[in-house]
Amino acid sequence: MKVYEYKAFPNPWRVRIALAEKGLTERVEFVQVDVPQGEHKQPAFLAKNPAGTVPLLELDNGTCITECTAITEYFDHLTGEPTLTGKTATERAVIHMRQRQVEANVLDAIANYFHHATPGLGFEAYQIQAWGEKQKEQAIATLYRLDRVLATQPYIAGDRFTVADITTLAGLAFGDFCQITIPETAIHLQAWHDRMQQRPSFSA
Amino acid sequence: MKVYEYKAFPNPWRVRIALAEKGLTERVEFVQVDVPQGEHKQPAFLAKNPAGTVPLLELDNGTCITECTAITEYFDHLTGEPTLTGKTATERAVIHMRQRQVEANVLDAIANYFHHATPGLGFEAYQIQAWGEKQKEQAIATLYRLDRVLATQPYIAGDRFTVADITTLAGLAFGDFCQITIPETAIHLQAWHDRMQQRPSFSA
Repeated sequence: MKVYEYKAFPNPWRVRIALAEKGLTERVEFVQVDVPQGEHKQPAFLAKNPAGTVPLLELDNGTCITECTAITEYFDHLTGEPTLTGKTATERAVIHMRQRQVEANVLDAIANYFHHATPGLGFEAYQIQAWGEKQKEQAIATLYRLDRVLATQPYIAGDRFTVADITTLAGLAFGDFCQITIPETAIHLQAWHDRMQQRPSFSA
Repeated sequence: MKVYEYKAFPNPWRVRIALAEKGLTERVEFVQVDVPQGEHKQPAFLAKNPAGTVPLLELDNGTCITECTAITEYFDHLTGEPTLTGKTATERAVIHMRQRQVEANVLDAIANYFHHATPGLGFEAYQIQAWGEKQKEQAIATLYRLDRVLATQPYIAGDRFTVADITTLAGLAFGDFCQITIPETAIHLQAWHDRMQQRPSFSA
């Protein structure tokens, strides 16, 4: 299988972390798509993904999967432990919920700030500054909320590493890129981030 | 288990459709939360869901699950066929991807239009009209895209009914509420919608 990506970007990193945690990295051929040069909006790539986004997983039968969480779902059902999305109904529901919350309120919120309230990629189709600024507020408020969550449990979705941690890591990486960082008083979030950096998958 | 909802709204309907399709409706106690009167922002409900959104699934052990797709994930792993989220790695990835796309580009886009570019609920914390209008454009463009998808397959994610159909139905119901309807030329989407209305779960 192939993963089309632009290695420096936060969303492709989510897929690389998932692969590393699952021990599947060696089974994937990575193909670089030059996003800063707009290669993701050229016909060759749009034929695989009309939305023109990376990462994209292309299976050997030609099926193309976009959306990081869908790609993670694929890897997680290829092999067993460790699972990133849970096993029991309750585990799966809690992890799915937490992932969705940090995706909307941290990663996507920071991405919206970047694309709307900063110069963004330099070729944004349109920008709505006020929306971008509100999304930044949302992201920062959520970082404080995550700090309270991590005061009582070691990982974003409970007592072990899951896809919700991956999404949060990508959000913070995107934040670093546009000067949204962990608040100084968010010591539990910072301690979690320090622990995450010890995992081999962090440098995936 | 209990589902806290406001029955008239699109998101609670997603959970009701999922329950009906899974044959689980009788196992749930429904609790109405008076959203138009702001009951979802009162301390009693916020204690269960700090985000103040319905629907909310409360398990017998007190665990609270928000996010419609997380609640669907729970139901789908309680019992077997029919599955709404797929079984094999590929099925699960494709369904997850399609669900995510229609959630972002139809349901959430229409909700954003409603909350930002119409009077909304009447007590919106803030409104960014330009963002709402762009989201409406996005929703309508996606309806045309879905029409092309449904020209070649009977359901949103392939050859059977899934959570991606549920999300699209809720999006269209929300659209009806704020005058975003199926475009006249989108005959495949209209035919799909007509078929969906024949399912017993449609009146859930």
